[in-house]
Amino acid sequence: MSSNKATVVVGVGPGLGAAVSRRFAREGFSVGLMARTAAACEAVQREIEGAGGRALSVPGDATDAASVAAAFARVEESLGPVEVLIYNASVFRVAGALELTPRELEDDWKINCLGGFLSAQAALPGMLQRGRGTILFTGATASLRGGARFAALAVGKAGLRALAQSLARELGPRGIHVAHVVIDGLIDTPRVRAMMPGRTAATLLSPEALAETYFQLHAQAPSAWTLEIDVRPSEEKF
Amino acid sequence: MSSNKATVVVGVGPGLGAAVSRRFAREGFSVGLMARTAAACEAVQREIEGAGGRALSVPGDATDAASVAAAFARVEESLGPVEVLIYNASVFRVAGALELTPRELEDDWKINCLGGFLSAQAALPGMLQRGRGTILFTGATASLRGGARFAALAVGKAGLRALAQSLARELGPRGIHVAHVVIDGLIDTPRVRAMMPGRTAATLLSPEALAETYFQLHAQAPSAWTLEIDVRPSEEKF
Amino acid sequence: MSSNKATVVVGVGPGLGAAVSRRFAREGFSVGLMARTAAACEAVQREIEGAGGRALSVPGDATDAASVAAAFARVEESLGPVEVLIYNASVFRVAGALELTPRELEDDWKINCLGGFLSAQAALPGMLQRGRGTILFTGATASLRGGARFAALAVGKAGLRALAQSLARELGPRGIHVAHVVIDGLIDTPRVRAMMPGRTAATLLSPEALAETYFQLHAQAPSAWTLEIDVRPSEEKF
Amino acid sequence: MSSNKATVVVGVGPGLGAAVSRRFAREGFSVGLMARTAAACEAVQREIEGAGGRALSVPGDATDAASVAAAFARVEESLGPVEVLIYNASVFRVAGALELTPRELEDDWKINCLGGFLSAQAALPGMLQRGRGTILFTGATASLRGGARFAALAVGKAGLRALAQSLARELGPRGIHVAHVVIDGLIDTPRVRAMMPGRTAATLLSPEALAETYFQLHAQAPSAWTLEIDVRPSEEKF
Repeated sequence: MSSNKATVVVGVGPGLGAAVSRRFAREGFSVGLMARTAAACEAVQREIEGAGGRALSVPGDATDAASVAAAFARVEESLGPVEVLIYNASVFRVAGALELTPRELEDDWKINCLGGFLSAQAALPGMLQRGRGTILFTGATASLRGGARFAALAVGKAGLRALAQSLARELGPRGIHVAHVVIDGLIDTPRVRAMMPGRTAATLLSPEALAETYFQLHAQAPSAWTLEIDVRPSEEKF
Repeated sequence: MSSNKATVVVGVGPGLGAAVSRRFAREGFSVGLMARTAAACEAVQREIEGAGGRALSVPGDATDAASVAAAFARVEESLGPVEVLIYNASVFRVAGALELTPRELEDDWKINCLGGFLSAQAALPGMLQRGRGTILFTGATASLRGGARFAALAVGKAGLRALAQSLARELGPRGIHVAHVVIDGLIDTPRVRAMMPGRTAATLLSPEALAETYFQLHAQAPSAWTLEIDVRPSEEKF
Repeated sequence: MSSNKATVVVGVGPGLGAAVSRRFAREGFSVGLMARTAAACEAVQREIEGAGGRALSVPGDATDAASVAAAFARVEESLGPVEVLIYNASVFRVAGALELTPRELEDDWKINCLGGFLSAQAALPGMLQRGRGTILFTGATASLRGGARFAALAVGKAGLRALAQSLARELGPRGIHVAHVVIDGLIDTPRVRAMMPGRTAATLLSPEALAETYFQLHAQAPSAWTLEIDVRPSEEKF
Repeated sequence: MSSNKATVVVGVGPGLGAAVSRRFAREGFSVGLMARTAAACEAVQREIEGAGGRALSVPGDATDAASVAAAFARVEESLGPVEVLIYNASVFRVAGALELTPRELEDDWKINCLGGFLSAQAALPGMLQRGRGTILFTGATASLRGGARFAALAVGKAGLRALAQSLARELGPRGIHVAHVVIDGLIDTPRVRAMMPGRTAATLLSPEALAETYFQLHAQAPSAWTLEIDVRPSEEKF
């Protein structure tokens, strides 16, 4: 059922990354799975293969240009041209103005923002050659608002949003759809459930529901492309 | 094929209003069609019926509470409970600060904003009783930005957006999905083609592509609802 | 000490309206004071005259074009050309989607938004003739965000902001400085103190501090004009 | 005339940095001047001293924590406690998605964003101890919008804005006023004049007018502090 069109998901955890990988696999995409550890990739690979799909684990460091380039090269070689890139890697740290170290701010920026640029640079040459492609970036409330003690997240996420806007404006006329998804709320993962035992499902974002929104962005016709969409649980205060 | 679930589209012209009506009809909704003139409604009604769907023309004045209430009552009686409301009525006038009359500003506000409130008030009692429903408002670039000589449009559209935000926050936890679509660009209609003969399709929004985005907003699971989404042609400068 | 340059303040209550009137009087402006009741105007007039300034009470209805025009005519006749307009009238009502009546929404919009347009239209002919002038609009958090049950305020305030943007873009190149002040928080007035006895001064906006910001906007050189500025107490959560 | 209160300006060029340094010096502040080259600092130092003020050149690398810390230590030792920090360093590069190198993106981010964090961390311990201080960040249109081929600037400037928001929310209640100035347009400098000989003064931002807005932000009472203000020439299209 899978075609030789590939989707690469950078930042494959047990929540949104896995769900969006499965969602695109279900549409017939072969999926390249990138995360820091092989174990994280392989868990999702097994799920996709178990459902009859095709996937490849390409563990690596999203903040290292060579590592990203190698991962994309392996995907293109094994799975086919990368038609969709989903940049979902992020790191979250709460720290006050004098607690946060410059190194932490920079390291977090590399994951939350620079990695998105590196991934886009790896995917774009092929997309531009074919005159089509989709690049989806995962944002957060912090993309729009720097909360107290949230500087490390907000600096990177605001930067990633600016990157998405810049790429969308440059690349839209060349056939590449770039969009940014503002996720407002907590995603329903085992870790979040363990940390917040009182939260009900209705106050958490279902990874599958999110993945559907990502797929629908990809499915949009060029005549009506979205740059930004927000999503939150119906019961979220905002 | 049509069910007894109804969608009401307020503001049915030859472009987006007609396309979104057809799109929801295609999913099995019966569609109540409201516009100022019967002719505008009936043209769309014939299209829907010709494709095997069910529709009802309820011409009326979207800025008059009694007219709106009567139209919704007729739809509920003939087609069934209104599960979806799409407020698409608008009026656009370019006028400088001293050219625009207070009466024009007020009249335009009534169509661009007040009518959205009246329609929501007509749809909400049933939606709240059933604990579900979707309300989609059509916005524009002017929803976000008041351009020179665009006050008449921007005042109403910014107000409609504020209304959408307020309703979404109040009603989301009660099961009603309220969303606002920022349409950035010109919709491909016969009138726009006639006015701007040089424009190619690639620089215009296809009504069908827009209608698809409206339907996908309705299809979202409550776990990941969108409040705002923007759409524009891939070739639009923005 | 007062000159024949006039400032008109529309919406003169015991808080910001009075303070901004005194502030401009202190700079030598004669001040036209408009509010619904003569008593509200006259209280401020006495303060200004007691400090050696010059003021004129022109009570009237800010939502009625004829009333506004008559008030401005009286000011121009008695005090001199209107160089500054400050639109500060507003009304605030909390009501849910089905509690708010269409009439209330419209009435509130007229005070929160239409009156700003009527005042600008009364002030602009003279300003444009002289090639200079300042128009300052009072906004609120609701100018940027429609909260649950805040539709009546948000629709008008978002509209007023859109109006300010539109006027700024049209009129800036003609020498008229239009700016919008987003007031985030509660202003320290006797009424607010009575309603919220627990609030300390540090969590409330001082009318005098706000008035200073208004004056500094007026004092800006055309080379670096502001369209929007926000203000809140240092202790405000936001 | 100068007191032992110091202002540090990071990013002292011939335009805004110099003007804001002179403006604060005129109010009696001693001014620490930081730029990459000693020559840039010393030119401004001579101007301030020539007008009877007090200044100290502390050339250094704004992206290097040790260099920034050393500069602030020298200022505190020679001039007195740093009551005001103005972060004005920036770098601007236009490059498309595949032209921009990761190294360039990172280097530009360090100047446009990280340096603001390093400077704030150097200034804050003293400010927090005294319970007062002002930190002003220079933004740009790119702080709000990522234009095509502007990613290198927009990523850093959006990040700096997020940092300003985060610091303002954390530090406002502790007496530190953090604000962000969105400069929309070109500043009138010899370099801009040379590059764009056709531009008239009316379409450029005067450094002195900008400096006045910076000073007025510092002068605000805590009861009505601004987080963000935009400024542009009256003739700017926006």
